[in-house]
Amino acid sequence: MRMVDLIHKKRVGEALSEQEITYIIKDYTAGIIPDYQMSAFLMATFLNGMTDEETSFLTLAMAGSGEMIDLSAIAGVKVDKHSTGGVGDKVSLIVGPVVASLGIPVAKMSGRGLGHTGGTLDKLESIPGFQIELSKEAFIEAVNTNKIAIVGQSGNLAPADKKIYALRDVTATVDSIPLIASSIMSKKIASGAEAIVLDVKIGSGAFMKTVEDARVLARTMVDIGTRLNRKTIAMITDMDQPLGREIGNANEIRESIDVLRGTGDKELTEVAISVAAYMAVLGKVLTSFDEAQEAVRDIIFKGKALDTFKRFIANQGGDSRVVDQPELLPTAAYHLEVKSQQAGFINEIQAENIGIAAMVLGAGRAKKEDSIDYAVGLTLNKKIGDPIQIGESICTIHANRQDVAEVEAMIRDAYKITSTQPAPKQLIYDVIE
Amino acid sequence: MRMVDLIHKKRVGEALSEQEITYIIKDYTAGIIPDYQMSAFLMATFLNGMTDEETSFLTLAMAGSGEMIDLSAIAGVKVDKHSTGGVGDKVSLIVGPVVASLGIPVAKMSGRGLGHTGGTLDKLESIPGFQIELSKEAFIEAVNTNKIAIVGQSGNLAPADKKIYALRDVTATVDSIPLIASSIMSKKIASGAEAIVLDVKIGSGAFMKTVEDARVLARTMVDIGTRLNRKTIAMITDMDQPLGREIGNANEIRESIDVLRGTGDKELTEVAISVAAYMAVLGKVLTSFDEAQEAVRDIIFKGKALDTFKRFIANQGGDSRVVDQPELLPTAAYHLEVKSQQAGFINEIQAENIGIAAMVLGAGRAKKEDSIDYAVGLTLNKKIGDPIQIGESICTIHANRQDVAEVEAMIRDAYKITSTQPAPKQLIYDVIE
Repeated sequence: MRMVDLIHKKRVGEALSEQEITYIIKDYTAGIIPDYQMSAFLMATFLNGMTDEETSFLTLAMAGSGEMIDLSAIAGVKVDKHSTGGVGDKVSLIVGPVVASLGIPVAKMSGRGLGHTGGTLDKLESIPGFQIELSKEAFIEAVNTNKIAIVGQSGNLAPADKKIYALRDVTATVDSIPLIASSIMSKKIASGAEAIVLDVKIGSGAFMKTVEDARVLARTMVDIGTRLNRKTIAMITDMDQPLGREIGNANEIRESIDVLRGTGDKELTEVAISVAAYMAVLGKVLTSFDEAQEAVRDIIFKGKALDTFKRFIANQGGDSRVVDQPELLPTAAYHLEVKSQQAGFINEIQAENIGIAAMVLGAGRAKKEDSIDYAVGLTLNKKIGDPIQIGESICTIHANRQDVAEVEAMIRDAYKITSTQPAPKQLIYDVIE
Repeated sequence: MRMVDLIHKKRVGEALSEQEITYIIKDYTAGIIPDYQMSAFLMATFLNGMTDEETSFLTLAMAGSGEMIDLSAIAGVKVDKHSTGGVGDKVSLIVGPVVASLGIPVAKMSGRGLGHTGGTLDKLESIPGFQIELSKEAFIEAVNTNKIAIVGQSGNLAPADKKIYALRDVTATVDSIPLIASSIMSKKIASGAEAIVLDVKIGSGAFMKTVEDARVLARTMVDIGTRLNRKTIAMITDMDQPLGREIGNANEIRESIDVLRGTGDKELTEVAISVAAYMAVLGKVLTSFDEAQEAVRDIIFKGKALDTFKRFIANQGGDSRVVDQPELLPTAAYHLEVKSQQAGFINEIQAENIGIAAMVLGAGRAKKEDSIDYAVGLTLNKKIGDPIQIGESICTIHANRQDVAEVEAMIRDAYKITSTQPAPKQLIYDVIE
């Protein structure tokens, strides 16, 4: 088999066989196929697409390019959850303790990543003492005992995906549905997921801008799951404004605790309950979504989810007192109110720009080497549809420096205030299974 | 400017500016833009195309990536000629002395290349003593005195094209019209051509298989020439069978001498006269094509072209007696007749396979390092439309080894004999200017 012939095949729009795709991934990962051939193949794939079958072959080949985590020592259906990402998305922190409380094993491997805030790992590390590194045995033991453990991803998880992603980033081939879908699903499969709930975000703070695009991505991933015997459900949810009201690391932990206590942001709570309910259905602890939603609400209402969260923190070396005493979490030195210069209604919040403002404060990494300040972040006091008066606070900036004029300007720019109240926004657009 | 943004621009089908294309070529040649970005760009270009304007920017940028040959010390319009290549194409060897005899300066730089036979340089080197290396001063002096010199291409002529071509070869992006057109034209422009006659070949022995494809390529190159102030004419001629009857190096010199003497193959003569006539028009020594054709025939008839050829050989150190005593050229040890096992008419000659047979004999290079045997080659005794009897020779194999069974089988395979005579083939399909 010659790579140049396979590039040609994709260039003329033909579908590749499983053998051909496996060859490409294996030899590219091994450094036998050079970057310049892979990037030509990726561009041809971008422009000519892949069939659903090819996409599932690609997913499996990338999953198999490194370590395949064996979770067979853990009892129960291993259900994983993945969000395509957005601003203020702390749903994983909430659903983990919730579904663990329902008896579903949460054996989660998470990455750090770049972006507006840290990843789930960074947020957890804002809890004093929290350890994200466990031996494989301790990890499995923790899940079997507590039903939940969240650790850092193995360096050798789907290395083909890591290598291809880096190449896509510099060759303008990132936003291709088969490449995005296979990238996400390969990591879930390599990390041992038996069933997967996907949260595909759309809007100003998401990768996907329209419901149509999100539906295609969601369907592609559900199809991959079906073909590879991993039951998969994809929700399409709003990211036209940040999710919840807190953006940062320690303050997202605080907001997650509020939701687990039953007193959190309404929309964030609704998304988290739906994700958890679908996980419960896929985990086979409940049979219908409605039943599962009831069970999830009950688990939260009875404080069981919060108890699980405490045990989870303590078990990974963290100070679980933060749950009842959130002031033990890192706190910023300065708190500045961004006050409205206009009266009216919040019509639009450009989520991505809010995310960038948080990153500029130090809540996220622009480059891999950057360090994160767990204490800093934003609290959105107003969200879309809210009425606002002149002088009222739109947003609170939590900073560790005094001069945040740049951040304040970014936040003002991100908010659009109009004289009429916008129609309420939809939160969950579709569910594909 | 960032290469990833320019790849994106081409990926979404937008046209790049002159500044953007110049940046890509400059930084790729300098090794600043890596191969993996260039190959993604080439694939996007392949699939999304380029406007005529972009193609001319690309041509100029590649021409300017290395040495730009200055021929201003040579009097007259410097007209160059280029063929897209085929089997038995020795037209350059013929038209050079012809147009030089008409007073047009022929300051030709030629490559060796890979393929069925050697390039023009290799064919000339089959003449004992012939030198293809001249100092720049000697080259210009030779053209001013004799109106003709043919030398090896400078190593630094359009290095961007050389580097890009190597990358296209391994990334399945060779057969793209804007990339082919700019590659050809950039080298002509870098080597100082002020006007260009292109011979675009079509058929079984050519890169282009249909008249339609050839027309698109021809129009693209003529358009580039027009935009860059190099008057360009493109002929589309037949390569569905080898041109002329000789394939090899020394024997192509022999056949060229026959044409210059006025006793050569009819079709080869016709193509050569047309190319020479268009060169004469572009060189402004004659005003109409018909007039130029007359002048070319006259130059040949009067033996002036042959005299020029002799002077040209002598001036570059070659033994010019070969013109009158072709037996002084390298001659093969064995001559084997491939005899027909069928009676009928020659219906088809797969030109490419004939070319490969010549290469297997040693007339051409499969790899750059291969050496050429000037003496070996093929003489096609029958061409399309010719009647043939059982036992009559189709082709003579000139070899320096006795066992040529493989070559004989290839030749038999390449000839298709039918009971009915095929319609005469067109030789010149179109002329685009």
